[in-house]
Amino acid sequence: MYRSHTCGELNAAHINSEVTLAGWVQKSRAKGFMTWVDLRDRYGITQLIFDSERTDATVFEKANTLGREFVIQVRGRVIERESKNPNMATGDIEILVSELTVLNAALTPPFTIEDNTDGGEDIRMKYRYIDIRRNPVKESLIFRHKVSMAVRNYLSEKGFCEIETPYLIKSTPEGARDFVVPSRMNPGQFYALPQSPQTFKQLLMVGGMDKYFQIVKCFRDEDLRADRQPEFTQIDCEMAFVEQEDILDTFEGLTRHLLKEIKGIEVDKFPRMTYDHAMKTYGNDKPDIRFGMEFGELNSVAQHKDFGVFNLAELVVGIAAPGCGEMTRKEIDALIEWVKRPQIGASGMIYVKCNEDETFKSSVDKFFDQEDLKKWSEVTGAKAGDMIFVLSGKADKVRAQLSALRMELATRLGLRKPEEFAPLWVVDFPLLEFDEESGRYHAMHHPFTSPKPEDMALLETDPGKVRANAYDMVLNGNEIGGGSIRIHDKETQALMFKYLGFTEEEARNQFGFLMDAFQFGAPPHGGLAFGLDRLTAILGGQETIRDFIAFPKNNSGRDVMIDAPSIIHDEQLKELNIRLETAK
Amino acid sequence: MYRSHTCGELNAAHINSEVTLAGWVQKSRAKGFMTWVDLRDRYGITQLIFDSERTDATVFEKANTLGREFVIQVRGRVIERESKNPNMATGDIEILVSELTVLNAALTPPFTIEDNTDGGEDIRMKYRYIDIRRNPVKESLIFRHKVSMAVRNYLSEKGFCEIETPYLIKSTPEGARDFVVPSRMNPGQFYALPQSPQTFKQLLMVGGMDKYFQIVKCFRDEDLRADRQPEFTQIDCEMAFVEQEDILDTFEGLTRHLLKEIKGIEVDKFPRMTYDHAMKTYGNDKPDIRFGMEFGELNSVAQHKDFGVFNLAELVVGIAAPGCGEMTRKEIDALIEWVKRPQIGASGMIYVKCNEDETFKSSVDKFFDQEDLKKWSEVTGAKAGDMIFVLSGKADKVRAQLSALRMELATRLGLRKPEEFAPLWVVDFPLLEFDEESGRYHAMHHPFTSPKPEDMALLETDPGKVRANAYDMVLNGNEIGGGSIRIHDKETQALMFKYLGFTEEEARNQFGFLMDAFQFGAPPHGGLAFGLDRLTAILGGQETIRDFIAFPKNNSGRDVMIDAPSIIHDEQLKELNIRLETAK
Repeated sequence: MYRSHTCGELNAAHINSEVTLAGWVQKSRAKGFMTWVDLRDRYGITQLIFDSERTDATVFEKANTLGREFVIQVRGRVIERESKNPNMATGDIEILVSELTVLNAALTPPFTIEDNTDGGEDIRMKYRYIDIRRNPVKESLIFRHKVSMAVRNYLSEKGFCEIETPYLIKSTPEGARDFVVPSRMNPGQFYALPQSPQTFKQLLMVGGMDKYFQIVKCFRDEDLRADRQPEFTQIDCEMAFVEQEDILDTFEGLTRHLLKEIKGIEVDKFPRMTYDHAMKTYGNDKPDIRFGMEFGELNSVAQHKDFGVFNLAELVVGIAAPGCGEMTRKEIDALIEWVKRPQIGASGMIYVKCNEDETFKSSVDKFFDQEDLKKWSEVTGAKAGDMIFVLSGKADKVRAQLSALRMELATRLGLRKPEEFAPLWVVDFPLLEFDEESGRYHAMHHPFTSPKPEDMALLETDPGKVRANAYDMVLNGNEIGGGSIRIHDKETQALMFKYLGFTEEEARNQFGFLMDAFQFGAPPHGGLAFGLDRLTAILGGQETIRDFIAFPKNNSGRDVMIDAPSIIHDEQLKELNIRLETAK
Repeated sequence: MYRSHTCGELNAAHINSEVTLAGWVQKSRAKGFMTWVDLRDRYGITQLIFDSERTDATVFEKANTLGREFVIQVRGRVIERESKNPNMATGDIEILVSELTVLNAALTPPFTIEDNTDGGEDIRMKYRYIDIRRNPVKESLIFRHKVSMAVRNYLSEKGFCEIETPYLIKSTPEGARDFVVPSRMNPGQFYALPQSPQTFKQLLMVGGMDKYFQIVKCFRDEDLRADRQPEFTQIDCEMAFVEQEDILDTFEGLTRHLLKEIKGIEVDKFPRMTYDHAMKTYGNDKPDIRFGMEFGELNSVAQHKDFGVFNLAELVVGIAAPGCGEMTRKEIDALIEWVKRPQIGASGMIYVKCNEDETFKSSVDKFFDQEDLKKWSEVTGAKAGDMIFVLSGKADKVRAQLSALRMELATRLGLRKPEEFAPLWVVDFPLLEFDEESGRYHAMHHPFTSPKPEDMALLETDPGKVRANAYDMVLNGNEIGGGSIRIHDKETQALMFKYLGFTEEEARNQFGFLMDAFQFGAPPHGGLAFGLDRLTAILGGQETIRDFIAFPKNNSGRDVMIDAPSIIHDEQLKELNIRLETAK
């Protein structure tokens, strides 16, 4: 062992002990006959002291040649510090060094190893192994480990069995794009990397495993939006002989346990909200309910005057921004420009200031009187001192626009507090959604999701109205998990494939094994999957997932540290029976 | 919930309770006015009784239509069984059924769901979801989960942090063949799936994570030998600021913990054996030391007579087969044929029978007298009643042959007891091994393994003699884990690449990131990896890993259940910028 103790554990109780420490030079400073070095490892920082009177001359000299991030080993005696640092675990002591070994020298790091580094994203990613030394990254990775362990221990105690499913599986055209892997032993054929272990976990239920989970990498070859990764981690779960209520109970239990265990926070029973209600009230199927600002639909109180913009709109809807009544005209104009940006796409925005004297001042005073505006304030729940913002247009679009505004205002107003947690379930998702591009219905969740039995008849007449036994867990405005009760009989599954536009042959080729399995005694079953990257980030009070992933890829799917992907040898291509399309 | 209890928990204490159970029909039998059904789930079997006097007529009728593996739900009252079954957890009770629902009918399963099934390997794999219902498979998967949890909890308590490393990495020509993944976003470039997270775990050490582990899938595109899988699972571990001794201590601790926790077995401190000693004594670097039969080298006592076969041999070596003195001539001849098979490749075998009266009878009595043979018995440790078998030839080959014979005899003699565990460390592996085919040295472990400092000088003069700081953990004749202390400075690593035949440019292209990392403050570090599939199988007392993997692939790398790999759409190929070599 290169050390008797770590750099985070020595305190007054160790005074006069002889110790050996090893770690990185965080910084050093010399003053007259003294040199101090902060020695860092994963566990903390310990101050070393080299004193020209008490330290051997060659050791003292060597100490003054140490650069930042040198890896060193020291032997010395724990002594009481003159100026104690109560903010440091080891702040009462320092080490009077008698022996010093440089285990490895270091070039000057390309950025500072501090909580707030001077390194930009690109250079931090290139030298991720240095970046990881910084507390925020290091602590995020340790935090992720704690979350994973808490999940595993909780589910394991509840009788869930973690079962590894294969990574080399079969490509299916449904859903997102697969990453594929050419098979050398089966020329011309390809494996696919799993987008999720969906069919395998269902087969485990057919196999009687009863309660399954797995923390597992999944892969999607999609054009990467910000904060998406081509490989991501799911907490994947499935249970047999359950109804929706059992799943919600079980995984609400898991999430409450995590919040308690990891954050020390007790939360009440999760509220449940239908998809329709969430869309109507928050314009969003993953509402952040840490704050109010619920939508008020104003059609009945805003379409009776001569204001054509409203009268022509499918939906007129507003929110009350708390305490925003004193916004200046300039601020309001900037906000109107914000909602008119192409990403949001509103054509304009009406505002109503709620004065302290219970009068109103709006941008549509020409059309609406005080009584009208009072009604608007009642519907949106606005109070004196608030500002009401109103959008109008096609219902779907205007809800999405107002939802974006709601989130933006809440962020600006500091209402999205990272250490406050407001989970909920959104239930009764539509089974299908219409895709304009392909002109047909797609599965909103996936093709294995069970329709609600009472809505089955609608499949023929009004497919968009069919609700699924599908549910999402939402935390602070993020979908952290989602799942469904599955179809477990061959007939319904075949029908579903038919409605989704599969020919019988396609369904057979791609999912024949699953439909076969349903004929050999499949139990009712269902489950869900959490996104571990996102879940961990949110529990950690962060908005982005990147620091909770040890070696993330950039937005082009590259690992800039190892420089992957890369070209491979012609011989490899030949063995795999493929060639590059561009190669002539 | 479809059930109030599982099929494994009801006993006499529940008598008169109303319960709801759900599960699979294991079997049913009717006799007169009674029908019994064994209802099975993951947790056990509960007997149901339908009694034409006490059961509703339609329920009774329905009960008689149930086929094997039907999925049913029943409601009924727990009653005392007339003929109790003390071998069953639920053997004191049965359920007098009042309600019966068929949740799903089932076709007749293609093989019996019994511990000893009538299904062959192929059909079991095609219908793996049915195979998993069988106790041996189900219990193996649950056992694997227990082993994984025990590993995670132990390492976590010891301060190890599980960190997920990427699956989409960079292809390197060194080592086994990579599976590659074409990148759509980076046309003409490929990711590789990791053969192990080797470089990433080393970078985590450079990043100061100090103690890392991960239970992780790894991939090797090799021609599959029996009981190898293209994807396999490692318990991958790495520690910083450690020497070999620290690693051996730590992971001996883990293994002792597993044996205690999982098997209830306490083992002594693991013996350590050098690679050279293992090869000399067992002909094998992963000796099974549950039994003796150590090699006796006979050169000095067998090369002084006129027996040319021996005199020309580099090595004459024998083992004593305990209690085999009474083997018939026919049995001996069969054994000689066995060692002469091409897989073993011996050219012949000499035997010496050790009679109870301390005389000897050998197949070379023409050349050797009783005194010679007595010496052979002393060297091989043979006792009266044993049979000595002697092989001769080139040392490497003859050791491998005698090792194969030793294992075969031990198996036949019942000396390889599955519930006995004899772990050991094999240490001081050679750093390099000469590859006849390429005419150069290859890294025996991998190119990141540190040579023993005292052997560094030999690198120039006698590379094959350089020992590495490398070690294997061996359990019952299987290598279950292996690792090394790593090189942690750029110069040594560059030197190593040079000795392995890399040009400077190749080394830079493939491992530049690692050598860069070594310049920014890399601590001394080392680690090891266990093969989880094998470890679990051995702990489970089994020889093959297949039943410890939920969905294994066959020897052609196919998943016969889902029929993967498979062809993919031309459009997919086009998007990936590749085409099939055979496509015209």
